[in-house]
Amino acid sequence: MITLHGFPFSNYHNIVKHALMAKGLDFEEHITYPGSPELMAVNPLGKVPAMTTEKGATLSESSVLLEYLEDAYPESPLYPADPEQRAGVRRLTKLAELYFDLPARRLLPAVFGNAEIPEATLAEVREGLERGVAGLTALARFDPYVAGDELTMADLYLRYALAIPKIIGPSKLDWDVVAAVPGLGEWDAMMAESEISRKIDADQQANTAEFMAYLQKRAG
Amino acid sequence: MITLHGFPFSNYHNIVKHALMAKGLDFEEHITYPGSPELMAVNPLGKVPAMTTEKGATLSESSVLLEYLEDAYPESPLYPADPEQRAGVRRLTKLAELYFDLPARRLLPAVFGNAEIPEATLAEVREGLERGVAGLTALARFDPYVAGDELTMADLYLRYALAIPKIIGPSKLDWDVVAAVPGLGEWDAMMAESEISRKIDADQQANTAEFMAYLQKRAG
Repeated sequence: MITLHGFPFSNYHNIVKHALMAKGLDFEEHITYPGSPELMAVNPLGKVPAMTTEKGATLSESSVLLEYLEDAYPESPLYPADPEQRAGVRRLTKLAELYFDLPARRLLPAVFGNAEIPEATLAEVREGLERGVAGLTALARFDPYVAGDELTMADLYLRYALAIPKIIGPSKLDWDVVAAVPGLGEWDAMMAESEISRKIDADQQANTAEFMAYLQKRAG
Repeated sequence: MITLHGFPFSNYHNIVKHALMAKGLDFEEHITYPGSPELMAVNPLGKVPAMTTEKGATLSESSVLLEYLEDAYPESPLYPADPEQRAGVRRLTKLAELYFDLPARRLLPAVFGNAEIPEATLAEVREGLERGVAGLTALARFDPYVAGDELTMADLYLRYALAIPKIIGPSKLDWDVVAAVPGLGEWDAMMAESEISRKIDADQQANTAEFMAYLQKRAG
């Protein structure tokens, strides 16, 4: 059986967990935190998520795991078959990664640790998110899904890539990033209603205390 | 015919150009710079590279274009057929992107514009590159290629992802990032010898003055 190594508070973990569930694959969730010896054994970078495949290979990086699942389990596809349309879905996924999650993530130390953020960093983060808002406004369909009438990897990636911008936008940039893209709020609410999303969100909630304890232990 | 929109000084442009040449595909190189009206017409984010496919679709983001070329033109593959091995190649590619190119790129304003870099930014960049060095040391084969005995997308991506770390490492971090990974320097020298690399490097050199003029015009 596939093993997903990580923890349910992590958005990167949850993107892959959502894909496993959406494809109807059996998997075991092995709860482990960054830098743990068990995690280092499957991923030398010590990051979550990592995966042990049915054949025993070890892999990591969310975007790599999504591609792997599609290559190895083409049933219940989360990509269109047409190369141009696949590229369109991957472009939306990349936009969610590069211009929502990655810039916003840089302000996490300020959220968890009350660290002071240099003005230059705030400006870089805002510039990244502005690019994301412009790109998503131009390229997303929300009809009802991001790339059109089928649920794709882009929906999964964007759902979890929005989590940190939703926190840091209003609290650190005085900016509601979701409201800035027409249709994004409605899509986000629709995505949250699925049985899979509800299960993942409940698991995340249930993991909060343990994750906070891990952070405190690491900091101390 | 495929059109690649961008400019030969750009490493992101060159990754895709190298893939097109390695796969033996006919393409036209349309020289254009970030934010130009012609580029905005094919990529609403205004970034290079972008591509117009043979069917007339417009796509962007280097990593998306690489996947597209492999989907649409499976001949002369740059990925192994086995899903686990493909994921291994994608993991190395991702490592080059996230832990070499992206962190180092943040110091480019200091290289081109003599901007002051905050100490916190230097620390973040160093942390990113340290992860890259550790990851590549653990995962790269250099036998003779990054993923083993075949040239793959990981070789192409890593070659151009190293360009900025090679500049900013010694000049801004007092650190030779290439020398820090056993085998990386020899691999880099081997990659530079191919006919394709030499053509791309010569085109880059020839584009330097025009790109610098573009930067100055943008700044002024």
